[in-house]
Amino acid sequence: MLQILFFFALLFTFSKNAAAIDFCVANLKRPAGPAGYPCITPTKVRTNDFVFTGLGVAGNTTNLIKAAVTPSFVAQFPGLNGLGLSIARLDLAPGGVVPMHTHPAASEILYVLHGKITAGFISSANSVYVKTLFKGDVMVFPQGLLHFQTNGGGKPASAVVSFNNPDPGLQILDFALFGNNLASSLVEQTTFLDDATVKKLKGILGGTG
Amino acid sequence: MLQILFFFALLFTFSKNAAAIDFCVANLKRPAGPAGYPCITPTKVRTNDFVFTGLGVAGNTTNLIKAAVTPSFVAQFPGLNGLGLSIARLDLAPGGVVPMHTHPAASEILYVLHGKITAGFISSANSVYVKTLFKGDVMVFPQGLLHFQTNGGGKPASAVVSFNNPDPGLQILDFALFGNNLASSLVEQTTFLDDATVKKLKGILGGTG
Amino acid sequence: MLQILFFFALLFTFSKNAAAIDFCVANLKRPAGPAGYPCITPTKVRTNDFVFTGLGVAGNTTNLIKAAVTPSFVAQFPGLNGLGLSIARLDLAPGGVVPMHTHPAASEILYVLHGKITAGFISSANSVYVKTLFKGDVMVFPQGLLHFQTNGGGKPASAVVSFNNPDPGLQILDFALFGNNLASSLVEQTTFLDDATVKKLKGILGGTG
Amino acid sequence: MLQILFFFALLFTFSKNAAAIDFCVANLKRPAGPAGYPCITPTKVRTNDFVFTGLGVAGNTTNLIKAAVTPSFVAQFPGLNGLGLSIARLDLAPGGVVPMHTHPAASEILYVLHGKITAGFISSANSVYVKTLFKGDVMVFPQGLLHFQTNGGGKPASAVVSFNNPDPGLQILDFALFGNNLASSLVEQTTFLDDATVKKLKGILGGTG
Amino acid sequence: MLQILFFFALLFTFSKNAAAIDFCVANLKRPAGPAGYPCITPTKVRTNDFVFTGLGVAGNTTNLIKAAVTPSFVAQFPGLNGLGLSIARLDLAPGGVVPMHTHPAASEILYVLHGKITAGFISSANSVYVKTLFKGDVMVFPQGLLHFQTNGGGKPASAVVSFNNPDPGLQILDFALFGNNLASSLVEQTTFLDDATVKKLKGILGGTG
Amino acid sequence: MLQILFFFALLFTFSKNAAAIDFCVANLKRPAGPAGYPCITPTKVRTNDFVFTGLGVAGNTTNLIKAAVTPSFVAQFPGLNGLGLSIARLDLAPGGVVPMHTHPAASEILYVLHGKITAGFISSANSVYVKTLFKGDVMVFPQGLLHFQTNGGGKPASAVVSFNNPDPGLQILDFALFGNNLASSLVEQTTFLDDATVKKLKGILGGTG
Repeated sequence: MLQILFFFALLFTFSKNAAAIDFCVANLKRPAGPAGYPCITPTKVRTNDFVFTGLGVAGNTTNLIKAAVTPSFVAQFPGLNGLGLSIARLDLAPGGVVPMHTHPAASEILYVLHGKITAGFISSANSVYVKTLFKGDVMVFPQGLLHFQTNGGGKPASAVVSFNNPDPGLQILDFALFGNNLASSLVEQTTFLDDATVKKLKGILGGTG
Repeated sequence: MLQILFFFALLFTFSKNAAAIDFCVANLKRPAGPAGYPCITPTKVRTNDFVFTGLGVAGNTTNLIKAAVTPSFVAQFPGLNGLGLSIARLDLAPGGVVPMHTHPAASEILYVLHGKITAGFISSANSVYVKTLFKGDVMVFPQGLLHFQTNGGGKPASAVVSFNNPDPGLQILDFALFGNNLASSLVEQTTFLDDATVKKLKGILGGTG
Repeated sequence: MLQILFFFALLFTFSKNAAAIDFCVANLKRPAGPAGYPCITPTKVRTNDFVFTGLGVAGNTTNLIKAAVTPSFVAQFPGLNGLGLSIARLDLAPGGVVPMHTHPAASEILYVLHGKITAGFISSANSVYVKTLFKGDVMVFPQGLLHFQTNGGGKPASAVVSFNNPDPGLQILDFALFGNNLASSLVEQTTFLDDATVKKLKGILGGTG
Repeated sequence: MLQILFFFALLFTFSKNAAAIDFCVANLKRPAGPAGYPCITPTKVRTNDFVFTGLGVAGNTTNLIKAAVTPSFVAQFPGLNGLGLSIARLDLAPGGVVPMHTHPAASEILYVLHGKITAGFISSANSVYVKTLFKGDVMVFPQGLLHFQTNGGGKPASAVVSFNNPDPGLQILDFALFGNNLASSLVEQTTFLDDATVKKLKGILGGTG
Repeated sequence: MLQILFFFALLFTFSKNAAAIDFCVANLKRPAGPAGYPCITPTKVRTNDFVFTGLGVAGNTTNLIKAAVTPSFVAQFPGLNGLGLSIARLDLAPGGVVPMHTHPAASEILYVLHGKITAGFISSANSVYVKTLFKGDVMVFPQGLLHFQTNGGGKPASAVVSFNNPDPGLQILDFALFGNNLASSLVEQTTFLDDATVKKLKGILGGTG
Repeated sequence: MLQILFFFALLFTFSKNAAAIDFCVANLKRPAGPAGYPCITPTKVRTNDFVFTGLGVAGNTTNLIKAAVTPSFVAQFPGLNGLGLSIARLDLAPGGVVPMHTHPAASEILYVLHGKITAGFISSANSVYVKTLFKGDVMVFPQGLLHFQTNGGGKPASAVVSFNNPDPGLQILDFALFGNNLASSLVEQTTFLDDATVKKLKGILGGTG
């Protein structure tokens, strides 16, 4: 019997070296590369590296847009590094909205936890796909396309969204146009919005220039 | 103004041809290839191709293992084809269990909807990662590794699980060993289980040989 | 000597079967899949399948935005299928602009043929990268991010742009927001633009709803 | 003539910088990332980094299962890093068996060096593919599926196996279930094996709990 | 007990649909796409689709270069389609040589079955890596680089080579330069070989022009 | 209004962490890995990291082969790291030639800036695809195949070439065969060139052995 054990021990020896292939818990203190972060030492990996808590409670939606997004991406959940997946929670008070946005490097799948959510995306071919979703409904948003979610009902709504990338990125349209130092003249030239509109939204969103 | 319209129309013309790149709703009647199914004609794509309903209600857990898995993979939700994502719902009555299994081609991320779920996986290096999860907790299961979920409490539990593959595959250990025509002698030789155990489980799970 | 020939003939025999691996000229009449179009029969491939003409002359910029984009994507140049590359020509009359847009599935590299082009992109972290480019300058636009190009001078300008995808997609912001049937109320809710602005741009760009 | 040399020298200069793209010999002392190990300095690369010796002799099969696996994965052969390939040697004495196992991140191709090997795998759809192989026969085992090899004859057998991953991982079923600290109760719940069986195999394989 | 069976049957039902994800045996009669061939109907897959015989015997080396390559690529072994692997056998009589060649889309790993093989490759940085290998030695040839194998001894030698591509391609230098209709003037201009050399080799290898 | 700002600030907070996903400007001082170089600190990224100047002027073609290649690969343009693209300029004086070569890890697309360029490639199936190209014409060269460009006219010609890899590699046939220490006997054995030819070209190209 000891011989079996010995045999397996041998196999085990070389599979030890393969630890990195199963997973690669991110060392967020080291510089990332194109494929993600360097792994922490395999022997220091703990069960909690594969567990994330905090998506069980609604985010704070007491803001004007009445919405909250709570991410669990690689920066919050280092165990996702290299595994090609991430997750987030979305809360929408009545009247709440997740503004038009894209994820430059991920498709998204949304599952409605409760409430009524109107969601949609626009394709490269400029077709519009909008649907009002209820508890348990699922909708998919293909990679890189403009999409949005709004609370379509009179009660709070929430959803879980997953991405096929540990770090899906997020580009919120209004923030990209009006929340930075991109010159108003360039915004106007490239969007056909008038100067007053651009200046007003820059004022609200903290943009300069 | 018409000229702007005209200009955009031109751009639109060539982006029309790009429709397939955004998404590729599966034509399940045609043979798949290594990357997935052929796409249906882009002009026939409808909003409902990107929406799946049916994960809002618990699956039927009135069976001996007291569990149900309701998949929304490419075979059920053709809009996922080529998008690198899928989803499923998991229900566990008290005492319920999703038996030891692997997904040969996907990592999995689990979000607990309600209840108490004890889940775990075993790595190539033979480390065990087991955790009892509560509502809103998230756990990730790296690609190809043995894992399981059990109801760790006295009340029904459920979860949503996502995969980074529209067709993640599923290999349930007991079913692979005891639910087909793999010769008992080979099962015994390759698992060190005794003949009586193998025969008993083959009887339960419908295996022959 | 005939024996060498014979030997090579044998090698050649099996490499014949490998033709598809080198390239896969698209059969645009057959449905695409997630990885691209089916290949035409290898024996029907001609040199011209790998050559595209038509980017040598400026596109027609006599429109209000004074710009033209001439694509050579897989739909125009089937030899690109499966090769992970495409190209286009961009012409900008004085005052011309390629409006804010994204490519959902490709990074872009731009080479200025002549003239003065001001180009920029905005990152997920909301940083702005804008530069005025001259003949022979190169700029790269990472995948999925909002970007634009304008003629920064008083003379015509043109550029060649390459993508790391035979079908990079193109989502022009104004067209996505104002050039389709996405309900004005949803546009307003998700962009914070006012109703008058949305209606005006819908009028220009042909949007309804 | 010197001018040709000079011209090539120039080309050579920039291709020098491209060294990493050809190969990336692993620096095993540095932490890996999701795509593999950092490369050693290109100028320190030697021919022997691309050569591995030691698979020419049979492994020691004087154990109860009468089998030996000698790996040449990235941990043993750093030149494989980033190249998408690895290899191993398998020896089976009469009665020998490589127990049921998976490679979480690789497909495998087996070539019989000598002897008679019965090998098989089970698919996600629960079909069984078993074959007795002889010298020079080849069998492929798709990624992530349970498979095994046994000596089907009365003489020693051996094989070379290749993987499409420099670090394919290895999860041996018995070791995963019975060779670690996974609680017996969880093993029993998730495999339907009885307590006596689990305890017995845990005893043999060194498991606790 | 029937309930367990029933439960598994349900799981089995949806995993049936996942068959294509495990493997995709090529239908060689249908046009390939960039990712490989369409799959044959999963229910028609047989064990023999995963087995290839014929590499157990030496190829015929009674030719001037005293070498034979016997491929088992997707065209010969359709079960490899989509699995990212292939294999071949190489035989070299004394004095035999596999001429300088590349595989445009695969790295290669070579295992010496018997004899003495001198093999080498040249990197982009123009370094030369040459080694004389003996029985059981392994050498890796990175993707796309020129490499060769010769019999370095006085006895027959043979090897098994694996590739990380079901269809690795093969471009034999002499055949590419002298075995087709590429104009002699172009060969001479682009290789600096003189006209007599080019014409002589064209004569031997069947080239025209 | 401050609340909107606050909301976006929150979203911005987590997207900050996603900076690496958009781009990964190479830190060329650190060792690369299989996927590229480690990223510089995102806060140190400047607009100029995404801009490369120097391709606007012709390279020096006053050499015997009358050609110059000016690369803008990751080593020259670190902003390309991880983005899957690179670019170069090609200049050919009358009679100039870019000798037969391959890129081991990239397809190439060529755009003629001016002049007349005869270009071609040879496939694995040994078919020859040669074409004389004029200003604005485009030709694609599939990954890993031998190809060349020559000036087909009496005036200077130039082109821009793009690759789907930030570091495409470059293996120039003559340099690989005659410009290093690969033994003449091996060159002769593996190319069927005679000793005088090999020695002569080794003399010209600086080869030894």
